[in-house]
Amino acid sequence: MRAVDIIQKKRNGEALSREEIEFFVRGYTAGSVPDYQASALAMAVFFRGMTADETVALTEAMMRTGEVLDLSDLPGPKVDKHSTGGVGDKTSLVLGPLAAACGVYVPMISGRGLGHTGGTLDKLESIPGFRVGLSLGEFRHVLAQARLGLIGQTPEIAPADRKLYALRDVTATVESLPLISASIMSKKMAEGLDALVLDVKTGDGAFLSRLEDSRALAETMVAIGRGMGRKVVALITDMEQPLGRAVGNALEVAECIETLKGRGPRDLESLSVELAAWMVKLGDQAPGLEQARARVREALSSGAGLRSFRQVIALQGGDPRVCEDLGLLPRAARTVDLPAERDGRVARIGCRAVGHAAMLLGAGRETVDSRIDPAVGLVLHKKVGDLVVAGEPLCTVHVNDERRLGPCLERLKTAFEIAAEAPPAAPLIRAVLD
Amino acid sequence: MRAVDIIQKKRNGEALSREEIEFFVRGYTAGSVPDYQASALAMAVFFRGMTADETVALTEAMMRTGEVLDLSDLPGPKVDKHSTGGVGDKTSLVLGPLAAACGVYVPMISGRGLGHTGGTLDKLESIPGFRVGLSLGEFRHVLAQARLGLIGQTPEIAPADRKLYALRDVTATVESLPLISASIMSKKMAEGLDALVLDVKTGDGAFLSRLEDSRALAETMVAIGRGMGRKVVALITDMEQPLGRAVGNALEVAECIETLKGRGPRDLESLSVELAAWMVKLGDQAPGLEQARARVREALSSGAGLRSFRQVIALQGGDPRVCEDLGLLPRAARTVDLPAERDGRVARIGCRAVGHAAMLLGAGRETVDSRIDPAVGLVLHKKVGDLVVAGEPLCTVHVNDERRLGPCLERLKTAFEIAAEAPPAAPLIRAVLD
Repeated sequence: MRAVDIIQKKRNGEALSREEIEFFVRGYTAGSVPDYQASALAMAVFFRGMTADETVALTEAMMRTGEVLDLSDLPGPKVDKHSTGGVGDKTSLVLGPLAAACGVYVPMISGRGLGHTGGTLDKLESIPGFRVGLSLGEFRHVLAQARLGLIGQTPEIAPADRKLYALRDVTATVESLPLISASIMSKKMAEGLDALVLDVKTGDGAFLSRLEDSRALAETMVAIGRGMGRKVVALITDMEQPLGRAVGNALEVAECIETLKGRGPRDLESLSVELAAWMVKLGDQAPGLEQARARVREALSSGAGLRSFRQVIALQGGDPRVCEDLGLLPRAARTVDLPAERDGRVARIGCRAVGHAAMLLGAGRETVDSRIDPAVGLVLHKKVGDLVVAGEPLCTVHVNDERRLGPCLERLKTAFEIAAEAPPAAPLIRAVLD
Repeated sequence: MRAVDIIQKKRNGEALSREEIEFFVRGYTAGSVPDYQASALAMAVFFRGMTADETVALTEAMMRTGEVLDLSDLPGPKVDKHSTGGVGDKTSLVLGPLAAACGVYVPMISGRGLGHTGGTLDKLESIPGFRVGLSLGEFRHVLAQARLGLIGQTPEIAPADRKLYALRDVTATVESLPLISASIMSKKMAEGLDALVLDVKTGDGAFLSRLEDSRALAETMVAIGRGMGRKVVALITDMEQPLGRAVGNALEVAECIETLKGRGPRDLESLSVELAAWMVKLGDQAPGLEQARARVREALSSGAGLRSFRQVIALQGGDPRVCEDLGLLPRAARTVDLPAERDGRVARIGCRAVGHAAMLLGAGRETVDSRIDPAVGLVLHKKVGDLVVAGEPLCTVHVNDERRLGPCLERLKTAFEIAAEAPPAAPLIRAVLD
């Protein structure tokens, strides 16, 4: 088998066999297939696509270049959630504890974000002492205790994906559904899951802004997961405005704790409960979705979810007292309000602009080497549809480095659109692929 | 400017600017743009193509990564011919001397072939002492003396092309009209030509077998040459059967010398004269094509062409006496005839099979490291349309290594098709783009 023949076959629009895909992926990971052949194949896939079978084979081949967790000794269903990411998207820290409290094991392995805010790992690291860099052995121990563990991508998980993603990034081959889907699913499926709930965002703040594109991505990922014999559902959810009110790492953790206390923003609570309910249902901890929702709501109102989170924080070296005292989280030197310039209703909050403003403060990474400031960020006081009076604060900026304030405020101003009338609220959940 | 943005632009189907193409080609040659970005761009070009302007810009950028000969001190037109290659295609060694004898300077820089037989260089090297590895200074001297020089690609000529071609070869991005055309033309135009005659082969033995593909390639190359301000014509010529009768390096040189003496095969003589006539016409050494043909025929019948060839051989270190004594050329240990198995007419001679049979003998290269045996090859006694009687030799195989004989004969047998009737002869020149 020769890599060049495999590239040519795909270039000519033929489907690759499982053996060809495995040969290429294994060779690329081992270094016998060079970068320049991998980038040529990636570009051919960009143009020719992949069949469902090819995409499953690619995902499995990438997954098998690394360790695949075997959590079969844990006495219960293993279910995770994956989100394609958005501004203020912090559901993991709410739904993980809730699902765990309902009897589901949640082995959450997350990446670090590049963009507006940090990823789940960066958020967690704003909790004093919290360690995301557990070994797989430690991770297993935490999971066994708390039914929830939250760690970072280890080098053992799907090394092919790390190598290929870095290559795609510099060869304009990121935007390919089969490649995106295989990248996500190869890492998730390495967690040794029985089921997976996908939260595919759509709208201005999402990776894919158009509903039909988000649906196609969701369908591809669902097909991969099912092709690998797992239970998978996908929710396509709105990202036309930030989720919740907080954008920034410690601020988001605080919001999650408040949500687990039943005092969080309605949209964040509602989406977290819905995603957790699907996890509980797929994990067979409730006979139907309605019963699953009830169980999750009960875990929320009883404080069982918060107790789960507190336990995980303690097990992973963090200070669990943050659950009672948010003042233990890092706090920015100063807060500055952005006032409304006119009366009216908030007609739009540009997600990308809000995300970019947070990044300008230091809440996110501009490059892979950027350091995140866990304390900075912003809190929205108004969301789409809310009435505002000129001079009222639209949001509060939490800032440490004064030089970053000006550019942040400039960018933020472009995010808010105030008009006489607001459009009707978009439903938070746009579609369910079950 | 970033390479990834250029790849993305092409991937999205946009035309690249001259500056972007220059940035990429220069960077790739210098090493600041890595192989994996060049292969991704090549694959994007495979799918998206290039406009005429882009292709000209690419050709010029590749040409300018190396030395571009300035032959303006030579007092006459500089005209070359380029052929896309075929089995038994040896016109260069006939038309070069003929055009030179008619007052045209022919600065012929050739590559070595990979495939059925050697390239022009390998054929020339079968002449005892002949040196194709002249420096550009020596080349200039030979040209000034004989109006003809025949050397190999030097590292100074279009280094971007050499690097890119090697990459395309292993990334399934060879078959792209703009890339093929730019590759050919960047090297040819570096010869400092005023005009170029293209011989684009079509048929079973050609790089592109379908007439419409050959025409598209011819049109692209003509457009490039004209876009660079040169006079260019293209002849699309038949390669459904080998050209002439000899296939193999020394055997082909012998056939060329015979042709320059007026005793060559009709098809070889006719095509060589026609191509030389176009060179003479584009070089303004005759008022029209008819007059140019007459001049070339005169150079042939007067022996002026042969004298030119003799002079070049001497100037480049070869033994000019081969022109009188073909016995000075390397000769194989043994000859074996392939007899006809039935009576009839030759209906077809599979070009690829003949070429492959010659390669199996050692006349061509299977890999870039293969050593060519200059003496071996085959001579066809029958061409398409000829009457044959069972037992009559169809061709004679010149062999050195006995182990190679069996596979060669096996392959050769598949080449000849003898039937009651032969199809009408295809015209040698299928189209002229002038």
